Amino acid sequence: MPKTAGIILIGNEILSGKTVDANAAYLCRELRELGVEVRRVVVIPDEVSLIAEEVAAFSKAFDLVFTSGGVGPTHDDVTIEGVARAMGVPVVRHPELVALLERYYRDKVTDAALRMAEIPEGAELITGNGLRFPNVAMRNVYVLPGVPEIFRRKFDAMRERFRDAPIHLKNVFVRIGEGTLADYLNRLLDGFPLLLVGSYPELSNPEYQVKVTLESRDRGYLEQALADFLGRLPGDAVVKVT
Amino acid sequence: MPKTAGIILIGNEILSGKTVDANAAYLCRELRELGVEVRRVVVIPDEVSLIAEEVAAFSKAFDLVFTSGGVGPTHDDVTIEGVARAMGVPVVRHPELVALLERYYRDKVTDAALRMAEIPEGAELITGNGLRFPNVAMRNVYVLPGVPEIFRRKFDAMRERFRDAPIHLKNVFVRIGEGTLADYLNRLLDGFPLLLVGSYPELSNPEYQVKVTLESRDRGYLEQALADFLGRLPGDAVVKVT
Repeated sequence: MPKTAGIILIGNEILSGKTVDANAAYLCRELRELGVEVRRVVVIPDEVSLIAEEVAAFSKAFDLVFTSGGVGPTHDDVTIEGVARAMGVPVVRHPELVALLERYYRDKVTDAALRMAEIPEGAELITGNGLRFPNVAMRNVYVLPGVPEIFRRKFDAMRERFRDAPIHLKNVFVRIGEGTLADYLNRLLDGFPLLLVGSYPELSNPEYQVKVTLESRDRGYLEQALADFLGRLPGDAVVKVT
Repeated sequence: MPKTAGIILIGNEILSGKTVDANAAYLCRELRELGVEVRRVVVIPDEVSLIAEEVAAFSKAFDLVFTSGGVGPTHDDVTIEGVARAMGVPVVRHPELVALLERYYRDKVTDAALRMAEIPEGAELITGNGLRFPNVAMRNVYVLPGVPEIFRRKFDAMRERFRDAPIHLKNVFVRIGEGTLADYLNRLLDGFPLLLVGSYPELSNPEYQVKVTLESRDRGYLEQALADFLGRLPGDAVVKVT
């Protein structure tokens, strides 16, 4: 069975429209490229009980869970507490992280800053690949910060541990509308029921009307399905295949 | 009690990283401007049972629910079916929508295209404000398409029905780090426990280090809190207030 994943974005700033999240889109793309199927993304407020509920549910439902946001020294940074509560463990201060913070802030480390040394008891610290500050994983839950530059750097440092069998993709761009296309897609799915097929109309593109995506983990199956689909479509309907 | 809202994005293309959603960010911003509090956003696959489950839960939990995506003529457009199942009603073909489609496609209307005339039984059609095709609302659930241009046009046409008391906002940009700032924020919240306070570090901005947001539905309370906060901060810490 290929790996599944869920993503939990924690942040009032996203829900209130002050910030546009970039981390979910990044992670969806990266995980797909790694062969991991993202099944759910959710955005919730900075509230411990909601975070705990969501993390517990995601951790059971998916192989991998990623959280974004709510880690840091201020009052609204409650993700670690939420993850700990989801797992039924206390929050503890990790001596290795305390030492890192003391080195980073020199002698000016405040109590607030030391909150960043807190982890759920039993969490794994993932170091290496140039990380100044380790990643924190509690069982299958990876806790990442909301700031996009740091989010990417921290994910990239551990991305290879998530790699699975690749999902192959073909895009067919057509110049017929979805109303006509629908019948061709239904016939394609009759012949290739395991194929993942998407159909995305593009209103303002002068080149084509719909992008059709065909996907499978089995490259041979995908190639056969593509040939079948192209063979049925009217010859002048296909703009390009990528 | 101010109105709450939840947003359900339906689309494999978002989860698989092929498309970057723009509708949730748009809707979060618009609803905030209207005084509506978005409490949850979720992205789920094009699967009827998942859509039904999610719509049922959102419809109970929030005053307003918006879905984006999964409406159209192809096999992966199953939102209407999901909403109907959530509400325990059948899907029916609405004669007014059939007539509109027949006029739009002239005599070339296909069976697939006629799927766009289907609604959950008992749904409301919302017309007016230049809409060519009416909006569909099933109780408190508003069904919108995924294509951003159409999503916006359709939401804008009915936005005024959602207006609530405004939420007032002040932004304070500071040139101190979150480690130091945290204590000032905690003291602010001690004095103004009803204030909504956010703290957003900005790594690559040369002007300031953190944007602090203060929010309240009570303008007087917000002004008092702002004065208190500015009075306590070191004079050279404040870059600007907007």
